Amino acid sequence: VIRINADRLLRDLKELRKFGASGPGVVRPALSPTDVQSRHWLAERMEQAGLAACIDGIGTVLGRSRQAGKAVLIGSHTDTQPTGGWLDGTLGVVYGLEIARAAAESNAVAAIAVDVAAWSDEEGEFSSHLGSRAFSGEDMAPTLAEARNRQGRSLAEALATAGLTDHPLTRLEPGRHVAYLEPHIEQGGRLEAAERRIGVVTSIVGIREYKVCFVGQQNHAGTTPMAIRKDAVAGLLSFAAALNGVFTRLAEGHDTVWNIGRIAVSPGAPSVVPGRAELLLQFRDTDTRQLRRLERALADLVEEANRGPIGVAMEMIDQPVEPAEMDVRIIDCIASAAELLAPNQWIRMPSGACHDAQILAPHLPAGMLFIPSIGGISHDPAEDTSEDDIVLGCRVAAEAVCNILHGHR
Amino acid sequence: VIRINADRLLRDLKELRKFGASGPGVVRPALSPTDVQSRHWLAERMEQAGLAACIDGIGTVLGRSRQAGKAVLIGSHTDTQPTGGWLDGTLGVVYGLEIARAAAESNAVAAIAVDVAAWSDEEGEFSSHLGSRAFSGEDMAPTLAEARNRQGRSLAEALATAGLTDHPLTRLEPGRHVAYLEPHIEQGGRLEAAERRIGVVTSIVGIREYKVCFVGQQNHAGTTPMAIRKDAVAGLLSFAAALNGVFTRLAEGHDTVWNIGRIAVSPGAPSVVPGRAELLLQFRDTDTRQLRRLERALADLVEEANRGPIGVAMEMIDQPVEPAEMDVRIIDCIASAAELLAPNQWIRMPSGACHDAQILAPHLPAGMLFIPSIGGISHDPAEDTSEDDIVLGCRVAAEAVCNILHGHR
Repeated sequence: VIRINADRLLRDLKELRKFGASGPGVVRPALSPTDVQSRHWLAERMEQAGLAACIDGIGTVLGRSRQAGKAVLIGSHTDTQPTGGWLDGTLGVVYGLEIARAAAESNAVAAIAVDVAAWSDEEGEFSSHLGSRAFSGEDMAPTLAEARNRQGRSLAEALATAGLTDHPLTRLEPGRHVAYLEPHIEQGGRLEAAERRIGVVTSIVGIREYKVCFVGQQNHAGTTPMAIRKDAVAGLLSFAAALNGVFTRLAEGHDTVWNIGRIAVSPGAPSVVPGRAELLLQFRDTDTRQLRRLERALADLVEEANRGPIGVAMEMIDQPVEPAEMDVRIIDCIASAAELLAPNQWIRMPSGACHDAQILAPHLPAGMLFIPSIGGISHDPAEDTSEDDIVLGCRVAAEAVCNILHGHR
Repeated sequence: VIRINADRLLRDLKELRKFGASGPGVVRPALSPTDVQSRHWLAERMEQAGLAACIDGIGTVLGRSRQAGKAVLIGSHTDTQPTGGWLDGTLGVVYGLEIARAAAESNAVAAIAVDVAAWSDEEGEFSSHLGSRAFSGEDMAPTLAEARNRQGRSLAEALATAGLTDHPLTRLEPGRHVAYLEPHIEQGGRLEAAERRIGVVTSIVGIREYKVCFVGQQNHAGTTPMAIRKDAVAGLLSFAAALNGVFTRLAEGHDTVWNIGRIAVSPGAPSVVPGRAELLLQFRDTDTRQLRRLERALADLVEEANRGPIGVAMEMIDQPVEPAEMDVRIIDCIASAAELLAPNQWIRMPSGACHDAQILAPHLPAGMLFIPSIGGISHDPAEDTSEDDIVLGCRVAAEAVCNILHGHR
């Protein structure tokens, strides 16, 4: 058993919250001066915990256990959304720090090696999952050459300002790293709705994003009788209704979610029958076959709609993100830990959000555990979790580490 | 009979088109340097036609017949949309010029008095129907103090630059003006669809404009299950579907038109369930009772939608424009003229667009006649009408003037 220190855990979380604190939330976008400061603070804390810490050439903080042999890598990210909450990412990193520290203190388990990673730019200030992609061995040269944030600042310049340009990249060590464990807040309301305290993640969703455009005939909204209009908005409305019907039917028995997050109408004047309209559609599922089914249904809807007076076209607007299965053995290790420490208070569930675990899962056995988000709120300054749940989550993660390493003895 | 000169009519139309010509269209917003130049040209042409012409303190060009006794006022506007067509407004003014000129030439009808008005800023560069409102006796001081165009130029400054500040305003002369006649292009596709060449306008629509807002709960589009979302766009989509159903039913047997010309979604990100959405709804009908019926139906729909999870609120966003009936006697005078010169080639129809005739109708008997717009296109550089239809329209208008004045002998 690794006995974690609840007070120390909460103190470190609150200490890290101060970097970029803004009301209850945190503003600490990747490689901002505040983010870089917080990474230096974290590296120092890792050293104090007995780890060999460094900040690598892309901004990831890696704390490496001085123990030889097999190691569990615990990680998440410490960068935030432009106006983010205090636990998204941070929680998993500070869990890792506390578990590594507690393991080193515990005589019985001193041989347990826990490495801790605070990935760089999970939230995509410059490019999503930057740290975990580099750690997994992706060639980062194209990203380093092109990535810029919304303000036009280049990634290369941000790394230079942070003094990281010549730092080496840390890499996954296949002989050493036997598992990746990412504890995280749920960022949704399922645990709360089910009155459970721990979510054992079985898989992470894949994502598809499409723009659907409707082209009619712009015209005078007073003199053009309804019957002869080619109203792009009317086309969009009936398409969206049909889409919701078909997707609702296809989603039965799945955890499929979809979202029309943006609608644009041109020219946008009250007296003008819109000649053009478009919607952004995103959908997610943990099952690649289901994603394909939804894509085919979307294509069919577009084809069918095109038989009417409004021209309809679809276009993929972002690279597809493929779903990732969590490792069955790691799932069992987390589930046993949850059943031991929170009997009947946990569920298995998919992750509807993306995580660094998705990047690492193809390279080593990976697992995630969730703790509840109050009111399901995340990516918002109001994001929070009860202290009891935070502490319980860390105990479950520590127990899961023991279970994982026990299997490697 | 007033014998109009077709060649001269077309020549003047083409001459006026040169002021602000841009491809096939015309860019001549009210009180722009080009508009002011064209008004001086027009005043000179009116003088050559035997009228006493002036440009008044708001920019209207009035050509007053030197005949004493009852007069028919023919008018429309010569300002254009920011990128407008060559006939919208201009047509009626040049008809007036040609009819006044032809009447003066014709010995038989020399006693006929035709005054011609080219109203200022019908299109609302600074303030809609500026000229006809001033002519009808509206106190223009508030508008003069406040009105600005999109570029922030004040109406007062535009009038000063045009050298019009100290010019007196022209006013309706109740003892003299027995009727207002406004020939205009249709700006829609009804005449073309019905294969008719003349539209005799029975009434002009009233307009209502509302913003309908939908407030839900912004949330993560991956982690928030469909069943517990409060999606503002979902609220908007089902509201719009219900609205289209109810309005379609209420519109039966009416010429009601409605338009959802703008939709805005917040925050507008593909991964975020929208917390807020809004739509702009405009509807028009010639019958005030029908407009009230539609308003009540809209309010009922909002009330009903409010029982769901999404908050719905409506707000009137523009002053209501009331419908105007054309004068029954003037309608008959135009209809007889149309039947004489274009038997079975004309229809009675409402105007779905607003016109200066709407402003003048409460003050004197008013009528309008339409000629076809090719393809129903207007407020667009491509706006056009066949020369045959242009000439026929002027002949019908001239004959209508004779009919009107005949009734006043």
